[in-house]
Amino acid sequence: MNDAVTRETLVGRLQDALGATAVLSGETDTAGYTEDWRGRYRGDALCVVLPSSTEQVSAVVKLCAAAGVPILPQGGNTSLCGGAVPPTDGPAPVILNLARMRHIRQVDAANGSMIVEAGCILKTVQETAADAGRLYPVSLGAEGSCQIGGTLSTNAGGTSVLRYGNTRENVLGLEVVLADGTIWDGLRALRKDNTGIDLKHLFIGAEGTLGIITAAALKLHPLPTHHALAWFAPRDPAAALRILGMFQSACASRLSAFEIMNRHQLDLVLENVPNRRNPLAGAHPWHVLVELSDTRDADALEAVLTETLGEAIEQGLVDDAVIAANETQRADLWEVRHSVSEANKKAAVGLTTDCAVPVSSVPEFIDAATRAVHAVVPGLDIAIVGHMGDGNVHFIPMFSFAAWAALADSAAMGDAMRACVNDVAARLAGTFSAEHGVGQTGLPLMQRYKSTAELALMRTLKAALDPNQLFNPGRLVP
Amino acid sequence: MNDAVTRETLVGRLQDALGATAVLSGETDTAGYTEDWRGRYRGDALCVVLPSSTEQVSAVVKLCAAAGVPILPQGGNTSLCGGAVPPTDGPAPVILNLARMRHIRQVDAANGSMIVEAGCILKTVQETAADAGRLYPVSLGAEGSCQIGGTLSTNAGGTSVLRYGNTRENVLGLEVVLADGTIWDGLRALRKDNTGIDLKHLFIGAEGTLGIITAAALKLHPLPTHHALAWFAPRDPAAALRILGMFQSACASRLSAFEIMNRHQLDLVLENVPNRRNPLAGAHPWHVLVELSDTRDADALEAVLTETLGEAIEQGLVDDAVIAANETQRADLWEVRHSVSEANKKAAVGLTTDCAVPVSSVPEFIDAATRAVHAVVPGLDIAIVGHMGDGNVHFIPMFSFAAWAALADSAAMGDAMRACVNDVAARLAGTFSAEHGVGQTGLPLMQRYKSTAELALMRTLKAALDPNQLFNPGRLVP
Repeated sequence: MNDAVTRETLVGRLQDALGATAVLSGETDTAGYTEDWRGRYRGDALCVVLPSSTEQVSAVVKLCAAAGVPILPQGGNTSLCGGAVPPTDGPAPVILNLARMRHIRQVDAANGSMIVEAGCILKTVQETAADAGRLYPVSLGAEGSCQIGGTLSTNAGGTSVLRYGNTRENVLGLEVVLADGTIWDGLRALRKDNTGIDLKHLFIGAEGTLGIITAAALKLHPLPTHHALAWFAPRDPAAALRILGMFQSACASRLSAFEIMNRHQLDLVLENVPNRRNPLAGAHPWHVLVELSDTRDADALEAVLTETLGEAIEQGLVDDAVIAANETQRADLWEVRHSVSEANKKAAVGLTTDCAVPVSSVPEFIDAATRAVHAVVPGLDIAIVGHMGDGNVHFIPMFSFAAWAALADSAAMGDAMRACVNDVAARLAGTFSAEHGVGQTGLPLMQRYKSTAELALMRTLKAALDPNQLFNPGRLVP
Repeated sequence: MNDAVTRETLVGRLQDALGATAVLSGETDTAGYTEDWRGRYRGDALCVVLPSSTEQVSAVVKLCAAAGVPILPQGGNTSLCGGAVPPTDGPAPVILNLARMRHIRQVDAANGSMIVEAGCILKTVQETAADAGRLYPVSLGAEGSCQIGGTLSTNAGGTSVLRYGNTRENVLGLEVVLADGTIWDGLRALRKDNTGIDLKHLFIGAEGTLGIITAAALKLHPLPTHHALAWFAPRDPAAALRILGMFQSACASRLSAFEIMNRHQLDLVLENVPNRRNPLAGAHPWHVLVELSDTRDADALEAVLTETLGEAIEQGLVDDAVIAANETQRADLWEVRHSVSEANKKAAVGLTTDCAVPVSSVPEFIDAATRAVHAVVPGLDIAIVGHMGDGNVHFIPMFSFAAWAALADSAAMGDAMRACVNDVAARLAGTFSAEHGVGQTGLPLMQRYKSTAELALMRTLKAALDPNQLFNPGRLVP
């Protein structure tokens, strides 16, 4: 019973503590946990544990700490940068998946808050909030399978950041299991609390390197019930920027989306995804989807949309525009935007990037990154799709499958292309990862783009909170 | 030149480094820095330094570190809890006041951001933003003299939290001088950045214990140009809570203030401050000021205000109400709310508290705290004024000057009264300091109300970032 735990005896001890059905081992049972959903990253795990309670998470942490075996906390395994699966080298970790912790502990509509366990699916949280007449605003492609704990650990972005902020801005409190197994109960659902260092922000976006988030108090908002949406063709990104400013001044927080894409990105959607229609007649170099939302008065919403767009047309900033006449048209236009990933996957090899720059620098970023990429591969196709209101542009150099296969060193080309784009972002005081996080893809970029002082601070925090490198060793801070 | 710095030689070395006019010593010159504005706290300082640049701050930190003399960073010295002046015991620190660092480094209206140095006065920042057609929303009583660095270090609240959040939510990046004199340049003005631990949140609200904030990238918002305001008498706090929910559902983020006070508080204003008029005829037990604001359409704003209030009246939740007919009336009604501190100071000895609870628990908090206070002093007058939309209630037991003077042990009575109130907040999962911070007043309360795990985490962070206890030793974490 009190024998020292070792790497060899750990699986058995975990089974004793959690029950045999909560500990998976063997390649067949663990396959869904050790490889990422796109099949790009794979690493071995000693086993996968599925705790059902915070106390069980604490027990797992204590056993792993005693055995000196690292822990990789895992949510819905929907990372876009290899952040949720084990590394290919180093000792195989225990994967601690939080899927069985999916209890909604409290919904308090009058306080605008809910307390949920880390394994709750994002979509379930959204729906539970809506049932209470409230909005949990974080919304993203993987919302049907990603877990709240994962969205917290990566500070997930998505399409509602412009109005509601990132995941970080929608959290009131956390429950976290620390490296010695201590449970920190910081589940306060308060709008204001100035009693010491705000500890929750340490763990949000730390990608599981400082502790394991087991539950969160989330912030809810009034539920918008009316929407107005337009699709228009701005003359160029600079015109789009001016129009964004006009919408912000006119609509304040009613402005809920301002998404830009270039013609090549739209063409890829139209050519590769069935039943997607060109929103505008003819060909235009740039496209913007703008959406307003509110809790009342659809007519007023459409009036301000029409008026602001009319002003932009009058100023010669817009070539063409269409306003969604009903919910079906609105859904159709969003479908075009949401089909980007599917289209790009089918069409070619896309070298996705995830930069953000100051919103005012988006036109310069697009221009300079295009020139940098074309200096390496003249005339290369580039798909551009971005959350322009957040300064977050996915700038994607595209190689045909044939051209990619013909490259002597495609990995080097991928790195070179991404460096072109990320260097431009860095020069404009931007970032190489706006919303996807660091994961495995971004680790070398941390070294390249972060200052010595910043990396040193992060290492100091890691050493202080996880001195034995128990949680996700080697991740986040190189 | 390279002699070791000691406590004895430090003042001279600081003068060498910064120039003689940037180092004040002697009681006369330092008096304005060593005592708080209300005259309740006073402590000795070795000297006061007034650096003009981040590099000078770094030089001061290195010299003090070498001499082993602690540093007390100071802004406008407007703390309500003794947070900005030296302690009465322990070695006298160097006060590092940031008043000379008041350069506005950048205003970027299109990005909704500005970069300011820590010594900028809050009001200057608000005005500079407004000149650029943008809003810096943080607003509070001391805005004419408090410095941005102080508002950041205390995560200041105020009257716009309901719509725009605390200071923390309005910061994009920071520049900080660390305990070894390193300058961390985290002045990114990005809406999204997921590249590692979000370091800025460590320093915001840390009350100068982890580093010295020298500059910040602040978030700006569209400037609201239209307002609609009503003053009404809800039946009771429970009715006020229901009406708050109605306004939130109807108005979403147009709702910019929802302030509650009880009859005793209103009477104190009317009796003690000249030219304040009762907003409503007759006597009512509870009062609410509600304000909507928007970037357009004053008529629509007044319509939704009238409509929502009408609904509340129809449901029997409101006894009487008045809508401000013009800007003068609106200003007059705000004046009543803003006269609370002046009135209370003149009227009696008020034992101010600063609790927040979940918004849904505000009625229970008021009820239970009243019973707790009256169990100790039956029938004692209580002034209640609060930011109800944030769950933040200043619940103030009031003693007449005569009654207070007659007490055998007034300090013990003060502690007992505050404990009554804070204990109720703690029982309702609330906090003893919503917006004022910890300072000197709150230090014993940290021990009383914070969990062992939470205090241990804070101590770990302090030890990691400031191992030699250079910054504000003994503060924030007991």
